[in-house]
Amino acid sequence: MGDDIARPFCISVRVYYEDTDAAGVVYYARYLAFMERARTEWLRQFGLSAAELARSEQVLLAVRSVKVEYRRPARLDDLLCVTAVAVSVRGASMTLHQNCLRGEELLCEGRIDIACLDAGDFRPRKLPPELARVATFTDIPARRNI
Amino acid sequence: MGDDIARPFCISVRVYYEDTDAAGVVYYARYLAFMERARTEWLRQFGLSAAELARSEQVLLAVRSVKVEYRRPARLDDLLCVTAVAVSVRGASMTLHQNCLRGEELLCEGRIDIACLDAGDFRPRKLPPELARVATFTDIPARRNI
Amino acid sequence: MGDDIARPFCISVRVYYEDTDAAGVVYYARYLAFMERARTEWLRQFGLSAAELARSEQVLLAVRSVKVEYRRPARLDDLLCVTAVAVSVRGASMTLHQNCLRGEELLCEGRIDIACLDAGDFRPRKLPPELARVATFTDIPARRNI
Amino acid sequence: MGDDIARPFCISVRVYYEDTDAAGVVYYARYLAFMERARTEWLRQFGLSAAELARSEQVLLAVRSVKVEYRRPARLDDLLCVTAVAVSVRGASMTLHQNCLRGEELLCEGRIDIACLDAGDFRPRKLPPELARVATFTDIPARRNI
Repeated sequence: MGDDIARPFCISVRVYYEDTDAAGVVYYARYLAFMERARTEWLRQFGLSAAELARSEQVLLAVRSVKVEYRRPARLDDLLCVTAVAVSVRGASMTLHQNCLRGEELLCEGRIDIACLDAGDFRPRKLPPELARVATFTDIPARRNI
Repeated sequence: MGDDIARPFCISVRVYYEDTDAAGVVYYARYLAFMERARTEWLRQFGLSAAELARSEQVLLAVRSVKVEYRRPARLDDLLCVTAVAVSVRGASMTLHQNCLRGEELLCEGRIDIACLDAGDFRPRKLPPELARVATFTDIPARRNI
Repeated sequence: MGDDIARPFCISVRVYYEDTDAAGVVYYARYLAFMERARTEWLRQFGLSAAELARSEQVLLAVRSVKVEYRRPARLDDLLCVTAVAVSVRGASMTLHQNCLRGEELLCEGRIDIACLDAGDFRPRKLPPELARVATFTDIPARRNI
Repeated sequence: MGDDIARPFCISVRVYYEDTDAAGVVYYARYLAFMERARTEWLRQFGLSAAELARSEQVLLAVRSVKVEYRRPARLDDLLCVTAVAVSVRGASMTLHQNCLRGEELLCEGRIDIACLDAGDFRPRKLPPELARVATFTDIPARRNI
């Protein structure tokens, strides 16, 4: 477990036909879906889910902005590793870095800004403590910033 | 207007990269999305919408089964015509025939069975009269049955 | 292992936001994508892939028709089991039955007809022997036919 | 025509169930698909297409990075206007600004960096003159920069 602290959370994503386009590569919007899957599983490992937070805390986690850099294309049948690392947690928002890798090869990296909103009036709300805690706890130096 | 009675309702659908896959053709599930767009616009021409019926009549229109035959592939940049014709209206359900054409060429045809459900308990409910009326009114002999 | 012979091949599919729609359930076309993932993994367990067969045998596996019955909706965060069973193998085509289950609950079942085509002229071609063999070998009595 | 110079190129995009998710709004990756549709139609008005440039000039237009800010959610049945404006054209790349609007309301804005690559070796290639020309010609002061 000793060096786990240096390894970001990661899920495996297989590329199927549904993810590819007529250029023979993964369609550029699909990486955002892959990243959302990784964020969901990153929360799930702590027993958290956006749907459950909406019910129990009346807050919504809304993506406010994304920045994605596409370096190399993923292709049909590739097995990708998609990471999720919280790099900043503020009162009512948090930022994640997410990479898509094929083996050691970085294909695509994203920076995702997420706001916590009141489910009733959509105004900014403090992150629920259980979320702020895990986001801070897993905050590690990101190796690649964009 | 004289021969309009023989022409089914139709929308134009342009094929973009998002619709294609690495085989260079439209991904097979995308035709169901195209058909749902056509059904939505078919209802809209009568001032109806599934979302509005859910609010005003507390009914849901749920797809119960689909049968799709794929004859020829659509490709990037194709301009398709996607039809919607009600071929049967019963108490709590209706059936539509839907074709995807490129010019005169039939690429794909579908038969869609839709149930009308109570939004509260999900039990079968009679089709709202305004929907049953338009579905029956536009019922024309389908030229191609599957 | 003894009773494995009666259990169809199955993959796990988690439902994410990308799979759902504003009705709060999985969008009806998404089940076709789930089934395609299961077919791909069913082939992969035998060391086969559609992309590889295209290269090595110059054949395409094309979906010719689908029939899907929707029984109950899947929802966000559901963990589904999606099966793939070959129920018929003929010279140039095969048919699979595929179910989507949530635990023991059958949500959706599909019947998928697949044709084997020459990659050059798109005419019917005999299934490659390695595919015909595994499809026949895994052919088990389907418990639910549609 | 006099004030057309101040209006960016725009396409209409209707929001269907396929575009929404269980949160009741348009799924965040779908805006990238809407923007790709608008870029395609922006090229088409000049008689250009990415697929055709790949054939005639052996160049690929590849998205290198995107930055998207989500301001307000689009919803089922909304009719959006999605713009495309070239804001910078360099030797082997170009940048577009793209907005999604509902009436006068800005829902989402994107900045898309596109590289021109040799279709053979994927190295940077000068933009084909016909593309550089139209991109420069339509270059107007963007009203909203991100």
